[in-house]
Amino acid sequence: MTDWTGAQTRAREWFEALRDSICAAFEAIEREAGSDARFEYTSWQREDDGSGGEPGGGVRGLMKGRVFEKVGVNVSTVGGTFSPQFAASINGASVEQPEFTATGISLVAHMANPQVPAVHMNTRFLTTTKAWFGGGADLNPPLPREEDTADFHAAFKAACDPFGEDRYPRFKAWADDYFYIPHRKVHRGVGGIFYDHLECADEARFEAEFAFTRAVGEAFLDIFPTIVRRRMAESFTPADKAVQLEWRGRYAEFNLVHDRGTLFGLKTGGNIDAILMSLPPEATWN
Amino acid sequence: MTDWTGAQTRAREWFEALRDSICAAFEAIEREAGSDARFEYTSWQREDDGSGGEPGGGVRGLMKGRVFEKVGVNVSTVGGTFSPQFAASINGASVEQPEFTATGISLVAHMANPQVPAVHMNTRFLTTTKAWFGGGADLNPPLPREEDTADFHAAFKAACDPFGEDRYPRFKAWADDYFYIPHRKVHRGVGGIFYDHLECADEARFEAEFAFTRAVGEAFLDIFPTIVRRRMAESFTPADKAVQLEWRGRYAEFNLVHDRGTLFGLKTGGNIDAILMSLPPEATWN
Repeated sequence: MTDWTGAQTRAREWFEALRDSICAAFEAIEREAGSDARFEYTSWQREDDGSGGEPGGGVRGLMKGRVFEKVGVNVSTVGGTFSPQFAASINGASVEQPEFTATGISLVAHMANPQVPAVHMNTRFLTTTKAWFGGGADLNPPLPREEDTADFHAAFKAACDPFGEDRYPRFKAWADDYFYIPHRKVHRGVGGIFYDHLECADEARFEAEFAFTRAVGEAFLDIFPTIVRRRMAESFTPADKAVQLEWRGRYAEFNLVHDRGTLFGLKTGGNIDAILMSLPPEATWN
Repeated sequence: MTDWTGAQTRAREWFEALRDSICAAFEAIEREAGSDARFEYTSWQREDDGSGGEPGGGVRGLMKGRVFEKVGVNVSTVGGTFSPQFAASINGASVEQPEFTATGISLVAHMANPQVPAVHMNTRFLTTTKAWFGGGADLNPPLPREEDTADFHAAFKAACDPFGEDRYPRFKAWADDYFYIPHRKVHRGVGGIFYDHLECADEARFEAEFAFTRAVGEAFLDIFPTIVRRRMAESFTPADKAVQLEWRGRYAEFNLVHDRGTLFGLKTGGNIDAILMSLPPEATWN
């Protein structure tokens, strides 16, 4: 299987459908809080990299609400050739075969109330000379609560287990390793799952991994709104808010210094506003 | 000349004296604004890198005042061996000869009033198998004013010219090249000077370059307080403040994604609080 056009279309359509479901769920939460906030959508086109391929683009959705202080969700579908310096670092690509396609959804929510965790979720399908899925989700509470952490992890364990009982422990450990700020020697949140290179050597593997990717998205769609509703009406102090703003500084450090997705976007001509949509609406460094 | 111990001591003593003068000048401005804010100083020790050398350390000075919302000044003096991956990228160092010493002053001021420019200044003396000075200063006004920009550049031109009339144009162009945010395609401020590898092949060159480094520090000590006093009583609107906070987000992006000084510090076991003291007290990403 070397023509991934149909597979990429199906993956893209799923990411768009998941985006629509998530945005509807988040807007419903805003209604419950008495707000009429809605996502606003902006299309963007990737700059042509001169490779002759379809440069592609995406749609960036952004909502600033009463519960969701700033939530961005981006679905992008791009293709082209990696630069020679970058090609060698990508699975299945090389200076001789630098072509790639990528489609994916990425979401980051920063919440107004520091009692409500922030969250990140991303799933993607890439092709070079190989084809694979990657993704992850992690919970980022400024004020961690055991119940929320346990429920978040349980949701992703339930999504992983039907696809192999080794998956959840491996992907949880991978998240612990990835979502770590080495210069601070702290994790950026309470973890979740992270995975990459779930390779699709044939159509059967593609179908299995595509089903897994959908299960991860559906787990997110279920558990995160549950946690938000649990915490959104809780009171907080100015000291709690200060903790949140300082904690968001660490989050910005992670994304700008360490996050491979951010670097991938910046190096492949991605849309700056879409790539940096993950940054917090407000942060402090004391 | 291969024993740089005496030279390093003289450089360090100058950086400490300059720090004392600058802090006194900034505290005097706080008095004029009716504030009793003072610098607080914290000593830090570098973690031993296992090379058997003196790991060194520094003193971090921090003031949060009425005019200076957050100003950090750090004098550090460290030595040791570069990691193999890092050694090859440093002037005069290699995997075989990874030893280095570094002493320097670095300062970043973020101002409460958006009419007052933020500023950065750094000068340093490094030794590997070579010895050299480097440094720079750049003005970062959220709301640029031609008079301030012109005066800032004139001060550094006057400092440079006695040391060779090619210096100012070269170092100004170097600053324009360095203080640039490629992913935004904007400069982070209105420039200044930037220079590196002013090599001290013999004692005469050391004396000349040391005199140049002192001239740069004295130019800063004169011009920046002048600009602060010119602007500190000006009124500003909430929209001006919003511009400043958004602009500080760009500043944080530059420092975390591109700044070589920040990366040098993070990779050589520097003190995190000292390295990241440059980050703004508050920033927004809309």
